[in-house]
Amino acid sequence: MGEKKKKPQKLKARLPRGFIDRSAADIRATEAMIGSIRKVFELYGFDPVETPLFEYTDALGKFLPDSDRPNEGVFSLTDDDDQWMSLRYDLTAPLARHIAENFNDIQLPYRTYRAGWVFRNEKPGPGRFRQFMQFDADTAGAAGVQADAEMCMMMADTMGTLGIDRGDYVIRVNNRKVLDGVMEAIGIGGDDHAETRLTVLRAIDKLDKFGPQGVRLLLGEGRKDESGDFTKGAGLDEPAIARVIAFVEAAGADGAQTISNLERVVGEDSARGAEGIAELGQIASLVAAAGYDDGRVKIDPSVVRGLEYYTGPVYEAELLFDVTNEKGQTVQFGSVAGGGRYDGLVSRFMGQPVPATGFSIGVSRLMTALKNLGKLGDDPAQPPVVVCVMDRDMDSMGHYQRFVGQLRAAGIRTEMFQGNPKNFGKQLQYADRRGSPIAIIQGSQERADGTVQIKDLIEGKRLSGEIEDNAAWRAARPAQVSVPEADLVAEVEKILAAQAQDREQGQ
Amino acid sequence: MGEKKKKPQKLKARLPRGFIDRSAADIRATEAMIGSIRKVFELYGFDPVETPLFEYTDALGKFLPDSDRPNEGVFSLTDDDDQWMSLRYDLTAPLARHIAENFNDIQLPYRTYRAGWVFRNEKPGPGRFRQFMQFDADTAGAAGVQADAEMCMMMADTMGTLGIDRGDYVIRVNNRKVLDGVMEAIGIGGDDHAETRLTVLRAIDKLDKFGPQGVRLLLGEGRKDESGDFTKGAGLDEPAIARVIAFVEAAGADGAQTISNLERVVGEDSARGAEGIAELGQIASLVAAAGYDDGRVKIDPSVVRGLEYYTGPVYEAELLFDVTNEKGQTVQFGSVAGGGRYDGLVSRFMGQPVPATGFSIGVSRLMTALKNLGKLGDDPAQPPVVVCVMDRDMDSMGHYQRFVGQLRAAGIRTEMFQGNPKNFGKQLQYADRRGSPIAIIQGSQERADGTVQIKDLIEGKRLSGEIEDNAAWRAARPAQVSVPEADLVAEVEKILAAQAQDREQGQ
Repeated sequence: MGEKKKKPQKLKARLPRGFIDRSAADIRATEAMIGSIRKVFELYGFDPVETPLFEYTDALGKFLPDSDRPNEGVFSLTDDDDQWMSLRYDLTAPLARHIAENFNDIQLPYRTYRAGWVFRNEKPGPGRFRQFMQFDADTAGAAGVQADAEMCMMMADTMGTLGIDRGDYVIRVNNRKVLDGVMEAIGIGGDDHAETRLTVLRAIDKLDKFGPQGVRLLLGEGRKDESGDFTKGAGLDEPAIARVIAFVEAAGADGAQTISNLERVVGEDSARGAEGIAELGQIASLVAAAGYDDGRVKIDPSVVRGLEYYTGPVYEAELLFDVTNEKGQTVQFGSVAGGGRYDGLVSRFMGQPVPATGFSIGVSRLMTALKNLGKLGDDPAQPPVVVCVMDRDMDSMGHYQRFVGQLRAAGIRTEMFQGNPKNFGKQLQYADRRGSPIAIIQGSQERADGTVQIKDLIEGKRLSGEIEDNAAWRAARPAQVSVPEADLVAEVEKILAAQAQDREQGQ
Repeated sequence: MGEKKKKPQKLKARLPRGFIDRSAADIRATEAMIGSIRKVFELYGFDPVETPLFEYTDALGKFLPDSDRPNEGVFSLTDDDDQWMSLRYDLTAPLARHIAENFNDIQLPYRTYRAGWVFRNEKPGPGRFRQFMQFDADTAGAAGVQADAEMCMMMADTMGTLGIDRGDYVIRVNNRKVLDGVMEAIGIGGDDHAETRLTVLRAIDKLDKFGPQGVRLLLGEGRKDESGDFTKGAGLDEPAIARVIAFVEAAGADGAQTISNLERVVGEDSARGAEGIAELGQIASLVAAAGYDDGRVKIDPSVVRGLEYYTGPVYEAELLFDVTNEKGQTVQFGSVAGGGRYDGLVSRFMGQPVPATGFSIGVSRLMTALKNLGKLGDDPAQPPVVVCVMDRDMDSMGHYQRFVGQLRAAGIRTEMFQGNPKNFGKQLQYADRRGSPIAIIQGSQERADGTVQIKDLIEGKRLSGEIEDNAAWRAARPAQVSVPEADLVAEVEKILAAQAQDREQGQ
């Protein structure tokens, strides 16, 4: 503080990696998308419920994929009573805590939705952040697969509402019980093999990323990636690997064929597997009754979902249109939402089972998809009219402030220029860069005359771009008019209407 | 895991103290309020910009009141590169970082707003949480007090838009420079007295809480509270204390009188004080020109704001209606929003000054105020129609699912009962507890006949409450009708319309 010799180093303005600021366009588009999704969820009879961003670490549990070490993947700190708290890594684990904590006040089935930030303490990458938004819907206290079928149909309706064409999306459904059946059949059932089963699950979940050959390696001895890093595999033998792969590739031309394929793969070896197949049959039947078997909802055994807590049906919304990935390859856009049944998550806290099912939408990933499809609406906000500051005495300023008030009272987005008013050119430059439709100008002479200049900045920009036939335009609509103060609002409204009409004709 | 003797202790479902879950009614009301405020900010020409919840600890700075120890009041943790990160404690410090980081891409003046969660690692109390929502608006790159005057008027318009009557709110404005002038005048100017000045500032900020006598003690030797805890004071002598108190109590009948009182208190001793008084005069003049001097915006030297980073005008929105506090005393509701000019906050990162001004709304506190005033609208969500599950075979379920689909396609909030369908009574109880308007019932006999039962749950509830004149009601509108399946949607629409009419007449 007292040391004067060394100039203090300026603080560097920067964000921790994996965190980003959000622009006006992004915020407005996200709001609009979330509003559309919310309407679907409300129509289905779901109500909002939210939990805070912190939970006790033990209440969250450790269900993140690829984080076997304690606290890996989660932001945690100790509270002043030395208890560990964590920022939520998804919206499902906190919901389970909420349901258990308020069980006596909750009316089951409990149908809720929520959008919120979640945090992953992971290495960030392109499109991969440490803070991101999920939008979830869940039904708790619903044991029947009709609740899972409903979730799949609601996901399909959500995609439809956002303007994604049929054929550009599919909701794929599978059942963890069938996979469990396969694992029993190849001899890795039971508590002793829990670790191996998790490795198998995660191997299958990598199908999109590594293809069947990569999954085969992860099911067997392991896989070395391009950088030379080795991931240890599940250690299955060839016949076991073949059976798991046969399961993953069991999708047939329609639901009935897929189910008959699954019956062949699982065989008679597992009651749990048979139960899972029966549930898939029921889901297929409900989905067909409601007409969603037209390609919107499909049984597909390659879907397993990476999270450990699923106990029955799992489902995923995939977008099928092509995009170019970072490596320049053409790939399908892929998953934007997923979920499943988690019958054990609430009962961790309770003496009784509380069956539940639900899904998460990856909000920014879905936004990227809509942007790719050209389904994001234009920014709905009209930039403001700018009232320029020509004279800087308080009397004149008060006068400008009144113009602003009159325009706002008429519902027109308006601001008085708030920067340094010395340079008039800078004021027009500001208005221009903001995309303002109109600038209002009143110098001392105009003020004495009781008039005000209204500058049409859109028209002005067009005129300066069109040297030819300039005269005709100028005649049709002048870029700047002088009107009595009393006519300010009416004239601004007239110009805004003319600009709106031009935009419409231009489209 | 293997140990079978001891039953594992169930995990306790609970939240860390100071954090709460949010109900549907609270979320919907908050959304509606935020939507109204956003419209005002947009009308004024502000655009949304958001920052993430984490910042580097040094970038946030330590500007929280009452936290002199490092990291007190803030949730912090080390990143895996050993740098300290903190959850933001307000939305202003992160905005300053954002502006400095993106300075070359930003068009000044930069007019933005944002709503978001902030965190305080403090002892929670009634209505005092460790996670809460703020809604901020800021103009950066605006050196003139016209920007502060605009903020005050925008706060007033916000209160008005939310339905708070004129006279029930006031925006109070003061200027830190005037207080600085007083402090210079009593000999505590300069770097050596920074600590003492902060103590004086915080003492004045406690005026609402402790009254003038309490503030006197905090300006002098210190104050012992009811629990016996002693807060050390600023150590001023009697004449100095008298002068500070004279400043705090300088508000007159109107702006001009207040300003002349201030001139008397500050005297000729401080150029900075004189500058502050001149700025207050300019704000008063601009506010008057726009007509906000009708009691909506007032110069009031008792406002200082607790945050250290303010450098000029400070302002506060106060609600004036009476409420009963925890101690049973009648008090004014008090502050719901506040802010000020922070010309030094962005320049901490930069070689150049970036003047800025803005304010924060305490969202849940303002919600509480609106609830007190009866200005929160009714929950806009109509509870869903419930389609009961009478037969549990997949064929029947598919049939029920189709009813649901037809009603949703007509825009009617509907759900199939997703709980255990064994007990029909429980299904009706669920519909009743949710406040559902209608239940749809179809047993095997009705299904064979191609009919469906529609139960009007609102009318049914009323009928069971009104024994007298029951017959007349029953004739007017039956609580349950049987219609052909094809008429389902039309009949449900008819009943919903009749219920809406009843509600309207009942009001």
